[in-house]
Amino acid sequence: MLSVAEALELIRANVSQLPPRRMALAEVGGCRLAEAVVSDVDSPPHDKTAVDGYAIQFADLRNGCADLRLLEEVTAGALPTYDVGPGTTTRIMTGAPLPMGADAVVMVERSSQPGPDVVRLEEPRAKLGQNIVRRGTVMRKGDVVLKAEHLITPAVVGLLAEAGCASPLVVPRPRATVLATGNELVPCREVPRPGQIRNSNGPLLVASLRQAGAEELDLGIARDDRVALRDKIGQGLDADLLILSGGVSAGVLDLVPGVLAELGVREVFHKVSLKPGKPLWFGVWTSPAGIVKPVFGLPGNPVSTLVCFELFVRPALVRMAGGVATSPPTFAARLSEPFMQRGDRPTYWPGRCDVAEAGATGREVTPLRWQGSGDLRTLVDADCLICFPSGNCQYAAGDDVTVRRLH
Amino acid sequence: MLSVAEALELIRANVSQLPPRRMALAEVGGCRLAEAVVSDVDSPPHDKTAVDGYAIQFADLRNGCADLRLLEEVTAGALPTYDVGPGTTTRIMTGAPLPMGADAVVMVERSSQPGPDVVRLEEPRAKLGQNIVRRGTVMRKGDVVLKAEHLITPAVVGLLAEAGCASPLVVPRPRATVLATGNELVPCREVPRPGQIRNSNGPLLVASLRQAGAEELDLGIARDDRVALRDKIGQGLDADLLILSGGVSAGVLDLVPGVLAELGVREVFHKVSLKPGKPLWFGVWTSPAGIVKPVFGLPGNPVSTLVCFELFVRPALVRMAGGVATSPPTFAARLSEPFMQRGDRPTYWPGRCDVAEAGATGREVTPLRWQGSGDLRTLVDADCLICFPSGNCQYAAGDDVTVRRLH
Repeated sequence: MLSVAEALELIRANVSQLPPRRMALAEVGGCRLAEAVVSDVDSPPHDKTAVDGYAIQFADLRNGCADLRLLEEVTAGALPTYDVGPGTTTRIMTGAPLPMGADAVVMVERSSQPGPDVVRLEEPRAKLGQNIVRRGTVMRKGDVVLKAEHLITPAVVGLLAEAGCASPLVVPRPRATVLATGNELVPCREVPRPGQIRNSNGPLLVASLRQAGAEELDLGIARDDRVALRDKIGQGLDADLLILSGGVSAGVLDLVPGVLAELGVREVFHKVSLKPGKPLWFGVWTSPAGIVKPVFGLPGNPVSTLVCFELFVRPALVRMAGGVATSPPTFAARLSEPFMQRGDRPTYWPGRCDVAEAGATGREVTPLRWQGSGDLRTLVDADCLICFPSGNCQYAAGDDVTVRRLH
Repeated sequence: MLSVAEALELIRANVSQLPPRRMALAEVGGCRLAEAVVSDVDSPPHDKTAVDGYAIQFADLRNGCADLRLLEEVTAGALPTYDVGPGTTTRIMTGAPLPMGADAVVMVERSSQPGPDVVRLEEPRAKLGQNIVRRGTVMRKGDVVLKAEHLITPAVVGLLAEAGCASPLVVPRPRATVLATGNELVPCREVPRPGQIRNSNGPLLVASLRQAGAEELDLGIARDDRVALRDKIGQGLDADLLILSGGVSAGVLDLVPGVLAELGVREVFHKVSLKPGKPLWFGVWTSPAGIVKPVFGLPGNPVSTLVCFELFVRPALVRMAGGVATSPPTFAARLSEPFMQRGDRPTYWPGRCDVAEAGATGREVTPLRWQGSGDLRTLVDADCLICFPSGNCQYAAGDDVTVRRLH
């Protein structure tokens, strides 16, 4: 059976970045740029004042003092109509263009008005050029201000706006279809009859996708029936990727791998050595247009679904969105209590580590009293998975273990 | 002038949690529950098998072996039609209900079929009750499975679905209006004429709000004109909070505080001792229905806007969304190079710390070559703000500083 690392490598090798497209600025936060961005303006666009104050000729100051004739007042967004010459000054507001002739600005706090249209300035330590930000200091027209692959943070959105890039070319958010399979499932608004359970995986996967920055289309529930599965899976393949839950174990009604094969989805692997999540199925479908789309068949138990999403689907989404495949966010911690690990597969056991705490040193992790892959109730208290290697082993309190943060 | 801590305390004292409302399960990820959730079902809903295998009476095994007559096959979602009695067995698939009479399940891997309708089982170490998950082991009907204020993670969404809570009562995401003010502003699709600049704060704030889990309504640009401001601000007060940028300095066209006062928005504070961001304005408006809505007037320079959002608006959003006000995510780091801090205000200086790296020990931070509050270009390379106390101080490489992560 494949190891987790081998499975991840196969996913990496079979998943590609989505084709870039232009999107409106309001929609691109969290995406990656697919092109370098060149500014079409200087910033600032003109010599400007950094303060509210008076634009002057520095040579007018005698020991930092001068009485000057006021020419006009220039607010941000307006233009000076007079040049500042000897003996004159213009009042300007923060960000306003510096009038021609001026070579320093004295803050309004250093001024008084001894008479009409006369401004008295007193700033003994004034310097030539003070409080002026020169045109193009931050960026010049034609500068590459952002490189391709830059992650679009709020600051990047602001810079894109400033540089005139209103529809940047970006790698879009992956759009995933979610389909839960199984005759035993009913929608969560219904009361299950004997033998039935509610579909918890569908909503769980929708929430996981949104949290991972992807978009989702929830196709609901498909019965364990070839025709129903073919129909829903066929719809699901319209999206960038398809995530199924259930139907991938070895039971007589586990039809999913067979139906996927009929639809031309090529199996890359089935089953991975881990617990929970062993029955994981992964394949790819090549659309008539030649686009390769990943298909995940996740095990039907909700905790298996969640663990497989975190371990395998999330890295695929990152790759599709143009992100760099990084090693998973694991860290070392000490067990707060003894733990007996049993079984022939590496186990991802729900734990509590208060990982939000700053400071990575001396972290302790507590294995929760988890009852297996059907036990979602315990998982809501977990903030991490503790990774135990395969084999039976009695761990003592204080033993070092590897912990993986849950998003 | 108020300190950052005093300003935060005033925000805390004036901002309340939004009124809870019922929302569809697909929309509640990231919100907080506003009520405890009680399950309306047992989980599992019946004694079930944890494996694909054969349900038997344990007493039939002799040294772990038995040849039994096959009664039927039960898949998940179906119900057994026969009881299992002495000498008989029913094949059941993972998750299927255990037939009456059975008290153990033998995995299919331990079976063979020596003749039609005869199943041979060989499991020398079999135990009474093995591979059975009893009804209600994970949760019982009537159990409180989630407490009020629980953050709704993907696992919680799954548990809500399982427990039959299709429309949980939650604290909704805050909805904010964004309004940039200033005669110098043009939308980012336009080419600025002399004296004009593009509105970068609007898109920057929209991206910040979405990243913070809030929703936004972008009202665009308001001119520095009482009538235009009154009109747009009036619209903005329909939302849960209003965020303005620009118009709060001391310039002659900085009309925002006056117009807010005219509209009945009560000023809580104006100006905070920090750099960038000193002109920050904060107030509250009480709607005719008695709902108190926060109003932020952020300074017009884009870096000031971003820093004020991170320091002041984000905690307000957390509080409105029912989150607990926690101390900001700061940590200690060592300067990688000397730094000269100047000025009479605490300074939040853009830095690079590669904060995504696990392991908080031995972190270094590099102050970026930042040119002040108009310099958004440098900010896109920052992943943190370095917090320097007020006063002139020459820092040496290796000195300890406090660093605040940028989201």
